[in-house]
This record gives sequence, C-alpha cells and structure tokens, in this order.
Amino acid sequence: MERNLLLFLRFDGRGFCGWQVQKKGLPTVMETLQNALEAVLGHRPAVKGCSRTDAGVSALEYGVSFRTENRIPCEKLPIALNIKLPDTVAVVRAIEVPADFHARYDCRGKEYCYRVRTTTIPDPFQVGLVYHLPYPFDAVRLDGAAAAFVGTHDFAAFQNAGSKMEDTVRTIAACRVTQHGDLLEILVRGDGFLYNMVRIMAGTLLEIGRGKIPPEALPEIIASCDRSRAGFTAPACGLLLQKVFFDENIR
Amino acid sequence: MERNLLLFLRFDGRGFCGWQVQKKGLPTVMETLQNALEAVLGHRPAVKGCSRTDAGVSALEYGVSFRTENRIPCEKLPIALNIKLPDTVAVVRAIEVPADFHARYDCRGKEYCYRVRTTTIPDPFQVGLVYHLPYPFDAVRLDGAAAAFVGTHDFAAFQNAGSKMEDTVRTIAACRVTQHGDLLEILVRGDGFLYNMVRIMAGTLLEIGRGKIPPEALPEIIASCDRSRAGFTAPACGLLLQKVFFDENIR
Repeated sequence: MERNLLLFLRFDGRGFCGWQVQKKGLPTVMETLQNALEAVLGHRPAVKGCSRTDAGVSALEYGVSFRTENRIPCEKLPIALNIKLPDTVAVVRAIEVPADFHARYDCRGKEYCYRVRTTTIPDPFQVGLVYHLPYPFDAVRLDGAAAAFVGTHDFAAFQNAGSKMEDTVRTIAACRVTQHGDLLEILVRGDGFLYNMVRIMAGTLLEIGRGKIPPEALPEIIASCDRSRAGFTAPACGLLLQKVFFDENIR
Repeated sequence: MERNLLLFLRFDGRGFCGWQVQKKGLPTVMETLQNALEAVLGHRPAVKGCSRTDAGVSALEYGVSFRTENRIPCEKLPIALNIKLPDTVAVVRAIEVPADFHARYDCRGKEYCYRVRTTTIPDPFQVGLVYHLPYPFDAVRLDGAAAAFVGTHDFAAFQNAGSKMEDTVRTIAACRVTQHGDLLEILVRGDGFLYNMVRIMAGTLLEIGRGKIPPEALPEIIASCDRSRAGFTAPACGLLLQKVFFDENIR
C-alpha cells in the first residue's frame, strides 16, 4: 500500500547549491535528502520540494513530499533520516498526506526573512547567514515604505532576467521591516514568489534606506513592471525561508 | 611611547584548538590574532588572554591585552584587524588601559553559558555550538539544585585530573538553569574557574536532571572535594564564554 508523505526540513544552505539538483557533482539539499531516504526506505523516491531555493539560502522550514511503500511509522522517520543526513540538514517532522498532495502545487504560501547585519563589526556566529551592510538604517521609515508591496500586484519589476514566468501577478500578505539589535530584518509573506523576488524586494528597500530611491517612488516602480527601476538583488546569504503554508488540514 | 591596549574579541571556537598556542600547527585563537596584529601593527606583540579556553569552546566576549608603540587610534583598530582576521574571529572593541594592566591577572570574573539542545531533532544552525542531549529536563528543579553552587567553596571535586591548581577555593556569584524552547541553558558567573570546572558543574546538573544524582546530594558532593563523586565533564561544544569582567574603570 503506497503512502504519500510530507517531510518538514530545516537546513543550513551555506554548503549547498540550493534545493534542486542541477549540474552533476554540485551538492544540493534534494540529492542529500534522497541519499538518506534511499538508505532508510530501501528505494530512491522521487521527491517534490515546495520551492526552488538559490545557492546559499537557508530554511527553518521546508516541505517535501514523496511516495513510498515502506511501512516505517511517521514518528520514527525523522530520527531514522537524521542519523543518515549530514549535520546541515534535519528532518523535523513527517506526516501522511492525501494521495494527490504535491508539496509544490499544494503550497499555499511562504514566509521569508531577509537579514542584514548593520554594524561595522562582523558576527563570527552569523557568517554566511546574514548580509553584512554597515549602515544606520531607519527601520521605522523602511517599514512604512514596505507597505507598498502588500496586496495583489504585477511584480514583473521584481523578477530577474532568465525567468520565463509569464504570469507575474502575486499577492503579498505582509512585508515588515524591524531592527533587533544589530540585525535589520525584512519579513515577506506571500502566496508565491517570482525568481529572486524577495532578494530584489530586499535590495530595493535597502536602497530606499540608503537614500538612493525615494520611498514614495515604490508604488510607481511596482506599477512600471520594469526590472531596471527596482533595486539590486540582495545577496542570497541574507535570505531565510522561515515558514511554508499548506492547507489547514495538512498541518 | 608604548601603549597598553585591551581588545574585546568574539570567536567561533569550532575550528580552533582553544585560545592558547600549544603544539605547532594546531589552529589557536591566540596565534590567529597575533598574525592579524603583526599585519596591522608591523610587529608581533606578546598577547595576554583573560583565560585559557578548551578546544571547541566559543566566546561572545573575550579580553586580550598587549603593548605596542604603533599609534593607530583605538576606534580604527577593530576595523583594521577584522580585515585581516578570518570570519570566525572578530575584534569588537579596543581601549587603552593602564601600563600595568594584564588581561588575565586583572580579570575579576567571567560568565559562562552551557547550552543543551533537549529535543531529538538536531538544529543545523547550532551544530557544534550546543550539546545535543534529548531528555525532558525539569529546568525549575535543576535551577533549585544549582543554588548549592553559589557562594565561596572549595571546588576541588569540580576540577579535572591534570590540573596542578593548589588553591581550589572559588566564589560562584550566580548559577541559574533556564529552558528556552528546545534549549536548556546553564548560566555560571564567578570570580575564577578551575580546569574544566564549568563543564563538570554542567555535567553534574545534567546527571541530577536525569535522576542519576539526587539534587540534595550536591552540597555534600561539593564538600567531599572528591572528583569521582561529581558528574561527567560535559562536552566542550556546549560551553560559551559570555562575558568577562574587569575593574569598573576598565570598561
């Protein structure tokens, strides 16, 4: 009897070239997970990740579904997999889901946090997990500007070249900017994201913070659908996938 | 005109064999700092660290003093050194101190935090920075037991073999146990510590937590001055030097 299972992962993306298997030989989270699944289940399942991730991006929560006839109970699967996985990837939870569930197509939304270290002194414990940009940002002012992202918009201006996505309309449920000590945090929650969208949103807010783009121009930049008017693509190291949302009955 | 300078460092101890230069070729924080100082100052100063640290132990705050005739202003020294230092070591601050100041002999106290991850699921972001011991510890009960450490005692039972320290009396100002989510934290503040003392204190509290030592036995174990009656030496990875205290006029 085949079951469809959903795993929630947490991974440190610093040593990976993202989730998706690309060129042979480059380490990816997907291949690393498949190796562990093969060792535990006795077969190598096709796995469906909730989203692609860029090289160097980390996740506090990431969803993966796959089918298996192996009968290992869900509560034992994380422990068995964590023994086989490297320290940089952990399976937090496993649940059984309906036969037609697919972690990518049934993903209802995601929440990202973009983190910037704003003092001159680097933090040895956060190297590669934050973007280091020493500047006295005004988080309250940026939080006000970020409200322009909220709602349903055509985000074509916030998609990097190379993407073939035709439908560029997305809904952003929340975009908040806060300062915690030396860390500026940009939280973005939405139903879906274009290629590099969060990193370009973060880069645009950082340029607003540094006075290169006036905050009142942001609605117009969004409306322009012109990539060249938005800010730079902030580095991958600052990006963290914090939460992934599925239907209520799935959690 | 020679100045005596004090640096406050922060370092990720996972890649180091402790502070102190030992065998040739092993990476130490001391040698790493001396290399950066030599590159910035044009000479290789003798440096005095506030304390030895075990291999794998990290520090949020660590004090180092040294003498130099180089005239670089204190406010510029951290930035210049951080350019030369690896990502795992950062100089947070530099101040001028009196000519007779010595970071070790003038250290008035230190505060450590011993951190234990208590769930079965490992955290990829904390590998090597916490001790992973999945057990449902009762932090409130342990906090009550830990009070027995507070005060001036002969801590000979909490010193590992190999130490030649003759005066084993130390004063512990605070010892608190708290649970923060999946993390059990043992905070210890004192005027000075014997070899492996905090790690044996932590190991003893963890054995109390697991029911191997009754909490009411702790005063008697301290009084016994017998190493074999205290608990195990908890692994170095869980230990973090959080704060170092000098005279009030030094900060």
